[in-house]
Amino acid sequence: MRAALLTGWRAPLEIADIPDPGCPADGVVLRVLACGICRSDWHVWTGNDPVALPHVPGHEYCGVVEEVGPQVTGWKSGDRVIAPFILACGSCPDCRQGHQTICANQALPGFTRPGAFAERIAVPHADANIARLPEGMEPALAAALGCRVTTAWQALTDRAALAPGEWLAVHGGGGVGLSALLLARALGARVVVVDVVPEKLAYARQLGADAVVNAAETDAAEAVREITGGGAHVAIEALGIAATTVAAINSLRKLGRMVQIGMPAGEHLHMKLPMDAVYAGQLALYGTRGMPGWRYPSLFNLIEGGHVDLTPL
Amino acid sequence: MRAALLTGWRAPLEIADIPDPGCPADGVVLRVLACGICRSDWHVWTGNDPVALPHVPGHEYCGVVEEVGPQVTGWKSGDRVIAPFILACGSCPDCRQGHQTICANQALPGFTRPGAFAERIAVPHADANIARLPEGMEPALAAALGCRVTTAWQALTDRAALAPGEWLAVHGGGGVGLSALLLARALGARVVVVDVVPEKLAYARQLGADAVVNAAETDAAEAVREITGGGAHVAIEALGIAATTVAAINSLRKLGRMVQIGMPAGEHLHMKLPMDAVYAGQLALYGTRGMPGWRYPSLFNLIEGGHVDLTPL
Amino acid sequence: MRAALLTGWRAPLEIADIPDPGCPADGVVLRVLACGICRSDWHVWTGNDPVALPHVPGHEYCGVVEEVGPQVTGWKSGDRVIAPFILACGSCPDCRQGHQTICANQALPGFTRPGAFAERIAVPHADANIARLPEGMEPALAAALGCRVTTAWQALTDRAALAPGEWLAVHGGGGVGLSALLLARALGARVVVVDVVPEKLAYARQLGADAVVNAAETDAAEAVREITGGGAHVAIEALGIAATTVAAINSLRKLGRMVQIGMPAGEHLHMKLPMDAVYAGQLALYGTRGMPGWRYPSLFNLIEGGHVDLTPL
Amino acid sequence: MRAALLTGWRAPLEIADIPDPGCPADGVVLRVLACGICRSDWHVWTGNDPVALPHVPGHEYCGVVEEVGPQVTGWKSGDRVIAPFILACGSCPDCRQGHQTICANQALPGFTRPGAFAERIAVPHADANIARLPEGMEPALAAALGCRVTTAWQALTDRAALAPGEWLAVHGGGGVGLSALLLARALGARVVVVDVVPEKLAYARQLGADAVVNAAETDAAEAVREITGGGAHVAIEALGIAATTVAAINSLRKLGRMVQIGMPAGEHLHMKLPMDAVYAGQLALYGTRGMPGWRYPSLFNLIEGGHVDLTPL
Ligand SMILES: [Zn+2]
Ligand SMILES: [Zn+2]
Ligand SMILES: [Zn+2]
Ligand SMILES: [Zn+2]
Ligand SMILES: [Zn+2]
Ligand SMILES: [Zn+2]
Ligand SMILES: [Zn+2]
Ligand SMILES: [Zn+2]
Ligand SMILES: [Zn+2]
Ligand SMILES: [Zn+2]
Repeated sequence: MRAALLTGWRAPLEIADIPDPGCPADGVVLRVLACGICRSDWHVWTGNDPVALPHVPGHEYCGVVEEVGPQVTGWKSGDRVIAPFILACGSCPDCRQGHQTICANQALPGFTRPGAFAERIAVPHADANIARLPEGMEPALAAALGCRVTTAWQALTDRAALAPGEWLAVHGGGGVGLSALLLARALGARVVVVDVVPEKLAYARQLGADAVVNAAETDAAEAVREITGGGAHVAIEALGIAATTVAAINSLRKLGRMVQIGMPAGEHLHMKLPMDAVYAGQLALYGTRGMPGWRYPSLFNLIEGGHVDLTPL
Repeated sequence: MRAALLTGWRAPLEIADIPDPGCPADGVVLRVLACGICRSDWHVWTGNDPVALPHVPGHEYCGVVEEVGPQVTGWKSGDRVIAPFILACGSCPDCRQGHQTICANQALPGFTRPGAFAERIAVPHADANIARLPEGMEPALAAALGCRVTTAWQALTDRAALAPGEWLAVHGGGGVGLSALLLARALGARVVVVDVVPEKLAYARQLGADAVVNAAETDAAEAVREITGGGAHVAIEALGIAATTVAAINSLRKLGRMVQIGMPAGEHLHMKLPMDAVYAGQLALYGTRGMPGWRYPSLFNLIEGGHVDLTPL
Repeated sequence: MRAALLTGWRAPLEIADIPDPGCPADGVVLRVLACGICRSDWHVWTGNDPVALPHVPGHEYCGVVEEVGPQVTGWKSGDRVIAPFILACGSCPDCRQGHQTICANQALPGFTRPGAFAERIAVPHADANIARLPEGMEPALAAALGCRVTTAWQALTDRAALAPGEWLAVHGGGGVGLSALLLARALGARVVVVDVVPEKLAYARQLGADAVVNAAETDAAEAVREITGGGAHVAIEALGIAATTVAAINSLRKLGRMVQIGMPAGEHLHMKLPMDAVYAGQLALYGTRGMPGWRYPSLFNLIEGGHVDLTPL
Repeated sequence: MRAALLTGWRAPLEIADIPDPGCPADGVVLRVLACGICRSDWHVWTGNDPVALPHVPGHEYCGVVEEVGPQVTGWKSGDRVIAPFILACGSCPDCRQGHQTICANQALPGFTRPGAFAERIAVPHADANIARLPEGMEPALAAALGCRVTTAWQALTDRAALAPGEWLAVHGGGGVGLSALLLARALGARVVVVDVVPEKLAYARQLGADAVVNAAETDAAEAVREITGGGAHVAIEALGIAATTVAAINSLRKLGRMVQIGMPAGEHLHMKLPMDAVYAGQLALYGTRGMPGWRYPSLFNLIEGGHVDLTPL
């Protein structure tokens, strides 16, 4: 089959003919319908997140089942499906509780195994992870959900349990931030978006943000507290940067909840945080990463119900 | 002041001059801006829910603070406010936990004390119950929230914890049923409305119902299970009738939750229910009544955020 | 192998030689170490819960892994394990969320397939259901957990979320009722046990009940409300009988929760319940059945921590 | 009346005659039965937590109601009561939701107003805060609950929602740490206590700790992960120190929860924390401070039920 190959750091991908993937006993082979791209792919491309070369990137994909492993019970040839970027094992104690994102035996196509910038992709642990695409949904839209929409969905509905009528402060107006904006609006929250780029803020406004704050021009935390009448109920940090995390914490009202969506890297692995504010404000800080595959149906039902238009992403 | 007086069961209300209400030490006197009317008023009018005559009905009201009792700390003359129909005492153990709707010492204007079909109303326990109206909100809209919208809000967001992307089945397309429809859509759920009156179903469609079921023509529970792909996650019973309650229970998927909003009366005080289905389906049934006053801000924030238009009610 | 065979309703079990079970591809074969017995076995024996004859009963067992199917990843020969009576498929959407007890494809040894009154038992879907026995735990104790302890554990900690310092009313002092008593005490609750047999009540006292009520001599619901200062926070119905269910509901304080553990049968499939009390008291009624296998570790940790002595059961 | 007066930093308290306190309109005057003492008193004494001199310390007290303000509805002369150290206003939106510990108008006897090292104390906002002592409970024991037991109770049962069968790691074996140990055991958890003082660890063992770790001799986080089979479900930081907080975070399993009970001070107001671990492990960090007065009954019910003996504290 034809695939896009990474053969050296920061080198252009090469289109090459490589062998078709074999079908895992507990997995499926998909004919790829669409594959998205995100910042994580860039980390692979630069070698920051090192992989074995040559490598097929691509972790945001959907496709049609072409082959089915003998242990798979839930899928058959012809099914249109999507998979989360974390392919959990499905049988460890964590998976059995529904906590697939912390599975110790997870497979990561596009990172630790060949991804979806190819005609076909092998997806192990199919029963544990993949989900059926709604009938009318375009593959391009499904792939565009990528890891950003699913991660935001998990952060808002599982980790922070954002409630309708609450205020959300989104710190960082990139892909995951705008995903959080759109989803939060769809579930009845009010949203203020913080960034330093005027164009991003204008776009956030256009997508329905109740308010925007330019952190280059004002104290973002104070501005959010002012707009929300005392502080946001929930804040999202979408960059993985210490200063933004501090601002997110300080933008909360008492008993507020902050979710760290941005992956800390480099000098930001460890962050100096205002624990006096966490203590006195009785705040909650949550880490989050990925989304279990079983949560796709609720997200698809939201989309099919016409609650959110994700095409702007 | 002038007030509308009920002087006999099913008699037309008389407009009369009665003394202005005194101000409770822990309460306020409001100049009434608007007062709604609902089925509970009808029960008072017919004598089904007997009150001492002559009586001033009216439990769905908003107004402007005119007098403030000496113990009140949170309100001052001129404030535009609304109150839930249950005025909790504010100091019993239940009230202190935020469970004002089960307060054993609750006051009920329009039922156990003079209501708001009058120029002025005395509202005891002001600090414990009343809420500020958002600046731009019309009094008529606020009063129209009445007990139906607040009861639906409590049922969906507190009792059933309806989640975005879930299916809600509303059994009974009257005022509280349509309130549940509009609120559920605003928080990202999909909604099927069940009734026996085609006009009500058509109106529900117009207000955004994903589907409607005519219970006079089909097995409602089966139809809901079909539409929702196995059963609703949450069902609302809005009539207080045994047959509807049974249908609501049977319309659920396994682990589904049903909320009894309709007040059981007469022969429906006790209902014969399919406990085999409750057991085998591991269902949950919840009773609900009213809404604590402290939950108005989340409802108002939903409205101010443009998530729901309640003018059709 | 030798097994105990049911060959006719209410006939004595026959010890017979039958072929060893084959090993399921996704399962294991266990050498049975111990097998408990409960009221459900009695329903099988009488033919009330009809099975295909001849039949090997036994659904409360533990054993040592002797054979391992090729698809199994988590278990190896020699492991000492236990299984819940519901063997969920492990790959349907419900299983993936951790809701194994509502799996539509569940296998039921001792009911729909050969049970554990035998030297060996085949256990399908091993990765999805079985759990490791703690090292020091006697097989006889593990088997004695049976379905009663696990069901009570799920009812109290998952369905009712019984909190430390709350009052639990157990209606029915049989095996599952006493299990609920012991577990509730272990998690810091106070417990009142209701029954009509003085010996059972005396035994409940001995096992740590804070109070007991003889329902043959007094109005049980009223007595519980008196003892608990207004009503129990949580009630368990352990018999599947309408009158007991009504008493359980009426023994609750406002916002109280009732769990139906007893399986409704015969005339009790449908029960006439005080929905006025459910409505006005804002009660919650929960159905429950079984326990997902992944919850064994928390139960074992409770036992290993010395919090509860289950040998009296 | 006679009272113990602080007249200078680090000076011995002087016994003096001062005027009896007046009774607040919404409060009571108590005759003090017992008053505890804790580290917070020491901060007052040294001037680290500066108060206006002369000052009557004492924030951990119980007493008998002697005078009742005209606005108080729930208490009468002769009642034996206890109060949390935070006296919330009772009428702000936070108080109305049951979130008295974040009340913006809180009164703090022993800090911002005269405390209980005196024959009498005035307790404002009585209806909103005080709780009845169980009949048999010794005043000395009640006062000894102090802020440490109530704070630990709130941290474990509200913030972390510690479940029976889970592992708790207590980092810091002082008063609040040992309170957490005793309470956690009473609710069915297993507990490992970490400290650097062998005597404290030995005492923790004696009080029922499942395991202890000497952080001076070993990597505490690693030891906890080893003992608990992968990490604690919940960790408590009881010192307010960065290094301990880091160890608490690193002692958690994935999806684990850490509660910051220790008040950060001085150089520890801001702490450098491993946000990579928070992100990758999907951890939760909670701040906590105090306990709402309405939670006393559950704590007292635990004690009256014989679940915990707090006399060792
Ligand atoms: Zn796994
Ligand atoms: Zn991605
Ligand atoms: Zn009250
Ligand atoms: Zn009404
Ligand atoms: Zn039936
Ligand atoms: Zn299944
Ligand atoms: Zn059994
Ligand atoms: Zn307050
Ligand atoms: Zn203290
Ligand atoms: Zn690190």
